[in-house]
Amino acid sequence: MLIELSINPLGRGTHLSQDLAEILKIVDWSGLKYCLTPLGTCIEGEWDDVMALVKRCHEEARRRSMHVMTTVRIEDEAGATDKLNENIASVERAVGAIN
Amino acid sequence: MLIELSINPLGRGTHLSQDLAEILKIVDWSGLKYCLTPLGTCIEGEWDDVMALVKRCHEEARRRSMHVMTTVRIEDEAGATDKLNENIASVERAVGAIN
Amino acid sequence: MLIELSINPLGRGTHLSQDLAEILKIVDWSGLKYCLTPLGTCIEGEWDDVMALVKRCHEEARRRSMHVMTTVRIEDEAGATDKLNENIASVERAVGAIN
Amino acid sequence: MLIELSINPLGRGTHLSQDLAEILKIVDWSGLKYCLTPLGTCIEGEWDDVMALVKRCHEEARRRSMHVMTTVRIEDEAGATDKLNENIASVERAVGAIN
Repeated sequence: MLIELSINPLGRGTHLSQDLAEILKIVDWSGLKYCLTPLGTCIEGEWDDVMALVKRCHEEARRRSMHVMTTVRIEDEAGATDKLNENIASVERAVGAIN
Repeated sequence: MLIELSINPLGRGTHLSQDLAEILKIVDWSGLKYCLTPLGTCIEGEWDDVMALVKRCHEEARRRSMHVMTTVRIEDEAGATDKLNENIASVERAVGAIN
Repeated sequence: MLIELSINPLGRGTHLSQDLAEILKIVDWSGLKYCLTPLGTCIEGEWDDVMALVKRCHEEARRRSMHVMTTVRIEDEAGATDKLNENIASVERAVGAIN
Repeated sequence: MLIELSINPLGRGTHLSQDLAEILKIVDWSGLKYCLTPLGTCIEGEWDDVMALVKRCHEEARRRSMHVMTTVRIEDEAGATDKLNENIASVERAVGAIN
């Protein structure tokens, strides 16, 4: 499955890139496939692996803030693989077919 | 912590209440505190309990659809209890103090 | 249509009920039907009316914070009315039919 | 400001790339800066321009489906520009500074 993870630690000022960098290192160490987007991090893998990683990332944010808002958007499609690349590619192919 | 869970099984037509009712029964059986909202279900509990329930609900949706979109919005605040009631009550108290 | 609005002003500490109360007053003054949920505010109305209200609420948050994260989840179903009540009621009826 | 737009038309089967391609053409014609992500489309611009585009995209989905779920996640930071690129770049710089 594919998720997009977005973590907002409150009470940490208005610039979050230092906190988000520490969290991104945890994603990177996990070995799961991921990509950064302008508003989150997409991660692909099996439910238990991905959600264990989400928990570690959220806990890192909670070590930094007493109050954390985390959003996980999940797309789970039977038999789909490489959705990190294929979701964008399939839309681009469909656009090409229209034009 | 408090979450809001929203599950959209694709390819199931435009009326989802039957699918959502089956999922809601799983929430109800869990024993965790919850409430329905117009666009989701809020559930309160410890991370592992809540996320195990989210997985069971998502899997029920996947038995019904090959392609499921699930959103989990998490609010986790140190020491907070009864956020299902207290989040609304604290805003209403603050409104009362303004007026 | 029905939306759920969730506004997070950053850099305002970890307790947001005062800011959220000021925003809720704007919702209340709008005359649109709404209800508070533990993680947001659901509002029902026509697109232009609802989105004009979302803009006013977001702008109030921006007056209070230089950096605001706002999420709008929209459900738009042809011919549906009173979704603030009917969404919950239809799931509860479906649960009743199962049991 | 920066948004991420995600549109789910219900009752359209489990493969949405054709519908999403038609919507993407509307984004492309708008002239606003955007990028595709695996789970949505990020768009940058002023509130009124971006939200007018969101409305046109949502209406296209509603022409194709009687029931549409649309999510708009908004990040609005005073004085920020080129957040489509800068959000990712600032996290990557912070990761580099840690290592």
